[in-house]
Amino acid sequence: MTSPFKIGLIGTGRIGQVHASSIAALNDTTLQWVADPFIDGAKTVAAEYGVPNVTEDPLALINSGDVDAVVIASPTPTHVDLISAAIDAGVPALCEKPIDLDIERVDALREKARSAKTPIALGFNRRFDPHFAEIRRRVESGQIGKLEQLTIISRDPAEPPLDYVKVSGGIFRDMTIHDFDMARFFVPNIIEVTARGGNQFSSDIESAGDYDSAVVTLRGQDGELITITNSRHSSYGYDQRLEAFGSLGMVQATNVGPTTVRLYNDELVEAQVPYENFFLERYAAAYRLELAAFIEAIRTGTPASPGFEDGRAALLLANAAEKSAAEGITVKVDLSA
Amino acid sequence: MTSPFKIGLIGTGRIGQVHASSIAALNDTTLQWVADPFIDGAKTVAAEYGVPNVTEDPLALINSGDVDAVVIASPTPTHVDLISAAIDAGVPALCEKPIDLDIERVDALREKARSAKTPIALGFNRRFDPHFAEIRRRVESGQIGKLEQLTIISRDPAEPPLDYVKVSGGIFRDMTIHDFDMARFFVPNIIEVTARGGNQFSSDIESAGDYDSAVVTLRGQDGELITITNSRHSSYGYDQRLEAFGSLGMVQATNVGPTTVRLYNDELVEAQVPYENFFLERYAAAYRLELAAFIEAIRTGTPASPGFEDGRAALLLANAAEKSAAEGITVKVDLSA
Amino acid sequence: MTSPFKIGLIGTGRIGQVHASSIAALNDTTLQWVADPFIDGAKTVAAEYGVPNVTEDPLALINSGDVDAVVIASPTPTHVDLISAAIDAGVPALCEKPIDLDIERVDALREKARSAKTPIALGFNRRFDPHFAEIRRRVESGQIGKLEQLTIISRDPAEPPLDYVKVSGGIFRDMTIHDFDMARFFVPNIIEVTARGGNQFSSDIESAGDYDSAVVTLRGQDGELITITNSRHSSYGYDQRLEAFGSLGMVQATNVGPTTVRLYNDELVEAQVPYENFFLERYAAAYRLELAAFIEAIRTGTPASPGFEDGRAALLLANAAEKSAAEGITVKVDLSA
Amino acid sequence: MTSPFKIGLIGTGRIGQVHASSIAALNDTTLQWVADPFIDGAKTVAAEYGVPNVTEDPLALINSGDVDAVVIASPTPTHVDLISAAIDAGVPALCEKPIDLDIERVDALREKARSAKTPIALGFNRRFDPHFAEIRRRVESGQIGKLEQLTIISRDPAEPPLDYVKVSGGIFRDMTIHDFDMARFFVPNIIEVTARGGNQFSSDIESAGDYDSAVVTLRGQDGELITITNSRHSSYGYDQRLEAFGSLGMVQATNVGPTTVRLYNDELVEAQVPYENFFLERYAAAYRLELAAFIEAIRTGTPASPGFEDGRAALLLANAAEKSAAEGITVKVDLSA
Repeated sequence: MTSPFKIGLIGTGRIGQVHASSIAALNDTTLQWVADPFIDGAKTVAAEYGVPNVTEDPLALINSGDVDAVVIASPTPTHVDLISAAIDAGVPALCEKPIDLDIERVDALREKARSAKTPIALGFNRRFDPHFAEIRRRVESGQIGKLEQLTIISRDPAEPPLDYVKVSGGIFRDMTIHDFDMARFFVPNIIEVTARGGNQFSSDIESAGDYDSAVVTLRGQDGELITITNSRHSSYGYDQRLEAFGSLGMVQATNVGPTTVRLYNDELVEAQVPYENFFLERYAAAYRLELAAFIEAIRTGTPASPGFEDGRAALLLANAAEKSAAEGITVKVDLSA
Repeated sequence: MTSPFKIGLIGTGRIGQVHASSIAALNDTTLQWVADPFIDGAKTVAAEYGVPNVTEDPLALINSGDVDAVVIASPTPTHVDLISAAIDAGVPALCEKPIDLDIERVDALREKARSAKTPIALGFNRRFDPHFAEIRRRVESGQIGKLEQLTIISRDPAEPPLDYVKVSGGIFRDMTIHDFDMARFFVPNIIEVTARGGNQFSSDIESAGDYDSAVVTLRGQDGELITITNSRHSSYGYDQRLEAFGSLGMVQATNVGPTTVRLYNDELVEAQVPYENFFLERYAAAYRLELAAFIEAIRTGTPASPGFEDGRAALLLANAAEKSAAEGITVKVDLSA
Repeated sequence: MTSPFKIGLIGTGRIGQVHASSIAALNDTTLQWVADPFIDGAKTVAAEYGVPNVTEDPLALINSGDVDAVVIASPTPTHVDLISAAIDAGVPALCEKPIDLDIERVDALREKARSAKTPIALGFNRRFDPHFAEIRRRVESGQIGKLEQLTIISRDPAEPPLDYVKVSGGIFRDMTIHDFDMARFFVPNIIEVTARGGNQFSSDIESAGDYDSAVVTLRGQDGELITITNSRHSSYGYDQRLEAFGSLGMVQATNVGPTTVRLYNDELVEAQVPYENFFLERYAAAYRLELAAFIEAIRTGTPASPGFEDGRAALLLANAAEKSAAEGITVKVDLSA
Repeated sequence: MTSPFKIGLIGTGRIGQVHASSIAALNDTTLQWVADPFIDGAKTVAAEYGVPNVTEDPLALINSGDVDAVVIASPTPTHVDLISAAIDAGVPALCEKPIDLDIERVDALREKARSAKTPIALGFNRRFDPHFAEIRRRVESGQIGKLEQLTIISRDPAEPPLDYVKVSGGIFRDMTIHDFDMARFFVPNIIEVTARGGNQFSSDIESAGDYDSAVVTLRGQDGELITITNSRHSSYGYDQRLEAFGSLGMVQATNVGPTTVRLYNDELVEAQVPYENFFLERYAAAYRLELAAFIEAIRTGTPASPGFEDGRAALLLANAAEKSAAEGITVKVDLSA
């Protein structure tokens, strides 16, 4: 038996705990360190997963010499500095999205990230969802001919707390950013962004100067038209659908229910219970597969994907969408620069 | 324009009215006569469809010299005599199922029916249902290889009135008889019948000495195994499903809803409204296509199908099922004699 | 029996024949006149449906004094004059969409249409589709709470001939116009149009200066966001879907197949044959129901719906979409003026 | 951290490896011993899962004093003796089905099993399948009223090797036995068995004196009618479906596919890839949940379910089915004795 791959986890909040669970589920991988300034949270996770090392200081973890990779699941404003520190320490990093809400901070790190000798992966976990990944495999295989249109419907089950909304960077940078990356999973080179935002139900979100709903149209380099429909609430559960339409056919991923059981009675037929509640349930497999792919990239010395440039591109699209929605104009973007 | 094909309708009750409506919908066909001892019913139908001739006496209709064919939709005990009269008059007849509840009366007519020069069609309308007919076309085309198993689920929406149950001939002769014919649509030569009946919910039906539920297993000449599941009630509407399983695949017809509309809310997703209420709605197209096929057979001089022998075979299977259910034994049958 | 309602049909091309068939299927309604400058076409339709009067001249038909209503299914450039003549003659008219491709010609007729004493109906047949009408009933009943988003996917099976494209008025006025009216079926007062067009597969359409694909986002007066996705081809048949998303749930109409039969084999499961080929099949019921509603409006003296103003509003939205797509800006519209 | 629950695994073939994997996936549980006379297989499993103790002798494992429970996954003829030894050693046991192919051997152990102080669980894993378990929860909750009919369709993907068929005990004891237990999951007290077997495709199976297809009808104490349809092959993958029909409605579990992705092209629409290949994939979750329930029963001191009596009952039903199929009679059974 080879010695296990040692991971350090920075941030032990909700998403950090998802990663802790994924690490535990992977063979030959061990959670060696956890770091969180909120030390009680870190200790709880450490106890649950039998982690030998706990610290308040993420830099102590990165520079411990005792981790083969780090997962960065701390608050967004810390991401740039922690990625930078990981590069300095020669430690591969998987960082949650977004890199930062400010494109200038991202660009300041860009050259360093480009020339880093160790992989930097961005946590766009949906690329690893088995359903969406299967659609992409089929598109890549030519099953639907030339890709012409992509329809993404993405609705959260319920609006986030107002405190979160205020620091989220707005719907495009916080929520749509996943859909921008999904669009780029199929069409990496987006050239144009048109967005409309709406305030349909949440006075909280409106008071924070943000939209609770949005529709975005993207155009790809080869003329692909991509539609994203977002809402911050959905009574029937987390609504995550994708359709790829091409010259020869269409492939479609519908929502995922907890069972296949259907009910028939005198009021309705073929009814299922509502969909998986939220991303922790819906994308549980995706988080595990994302981590596995990250470790595989390290082991084989191949670039991590999605990586830093993908994180930057998604933020550029979010910025363009915000401008488009505010000004009522289509905004051209150049992701190739 | 050729002169229209003239039809005489005997019996203007519920099922007679279905045929009147089908005749009206067919091009180049006219309802020329209606006959019913309940003359007020006949007159109402005549007025609705502009029928020039009305009579209490079905023989007057048959022998009028003014009809190209008759549709017999009168009570079951009249069928044998009316078919016989139609043969004598040289008038093609489409008779509702069953020919009779008594196999001896059927057999007494058999030789005459066999040697009749005019077509005699039996009203097993489900053979003309577009969904089931499509399954048969695929089976015949070899799409699923050798047919091995057939699964028929057939549940009525609600139990019939007790008065009807008492004269119905029992569930096997009244309700399952359609499923026996559907089985023979795929496997004409059934060699063995095994049946179990049950009293699950209706004290009325039990008091009439009948079953409210039944399961029948048939074996075909080439080893096909056919399962029929019946119930006299179904809270979610008329349940009419069919699956044909073969060496290379399976084809399946699910239930038919009034629209494709599906509802999603916080209690359920993908819900449709209940299925078509009963046979008048569910098999409306089948009744029209049945009539069209009957007229086509007359016009082209080809035998009507299903015909008298099919009506007799279904009754033999019903009799065998009754015996099997009563005695707890598998009953061999010989439909080829 | 009351004397039948007499209809005159102007134009006996493909869509005129659909109306002729619908008239034949309605009780108490007769096709009394047909008019078409291409007199052979008119005669063929007259022979098939037993129409007593045939003319080359639509005005002869309108002014015959022998029709209770006219259906105008002639080429678009004739619509304005024929509607005007029908108003003058006091004959109710059901006119195919669009009223005209030129908003100035439409506006020139507007005041006369407004003050007409006889109903003028516009042939937006999809409002009568049982599936879409069921969705609207549910939305109106409050089943999904406040309507927030509407998703319309509408793809034709194959691109039209180049000769047609050249005179069609462009994708927004010819194809999307149906979707604009569907949007207004749910949200009459649209206030904003954003559109992107694409040339994805047809060099013919591109050479004609038109788009073969389009995405449109509309905003309603109460903040509703509506997405329309169009393509001029679809390998799997006519793609006609609609989803209404609200605060309490979602209702969805999926595509309509010819049967419910599904295939299962070693390569795939749950497969159906492709959808209804095109509008004649998919919307056959809608055409019949449209005509019945038109006659009902005449009989009861209620306004026809959709009517002239709906035809004008859809054209205004198409014009706004064209401008938006060309200039890359969101265009505000005022349909209430 | 409490010390982990120590499990000994007897038999390291295909099904033993499934259990090894389930044990590894459970928190606070460790695979402490493996035993298999085929010692190389045992060593391979031990190496993969880091098991400290390996032996050829299952009794050495049972009597090691170092296991909190055993999982018996060795060949069927060893089950009775190993269960007996586990009882003697006071070690809880989860034994794969069937207990034995010979009811006399089962009955000889019955009294000892009944009075055992430690739990004996039988490996009817399908009771733990989330889909089927959800159906049962709903039936128990009264959602469909009184249970009247149960439809079980169960088809293996491909026939087993002839060598296996010869020692399998026949289709009823080897394959249908799972469906008998599923029937008893809903209706414990079955009173009547009617079965028909067929030889539809496999000359190998026929040469071994066994059936390759079967249909069974069961009757429950309260009149429930249960239908089981079996085939030893299925081109479209493992076919595992269940419907419970009651006075107020129906609940249904359809097959499970690897993804929700559907394909649409010019030949078909809504197509999915074939279902999960076989029981290892389809019932992976069920195996894990079965083991967790077994450990929970031990920890809480509650009886294991399904247990020895359930194993015996399923065998009695299989024996009755064999007799019914051979003799063409319905066979009464008394499971309450």
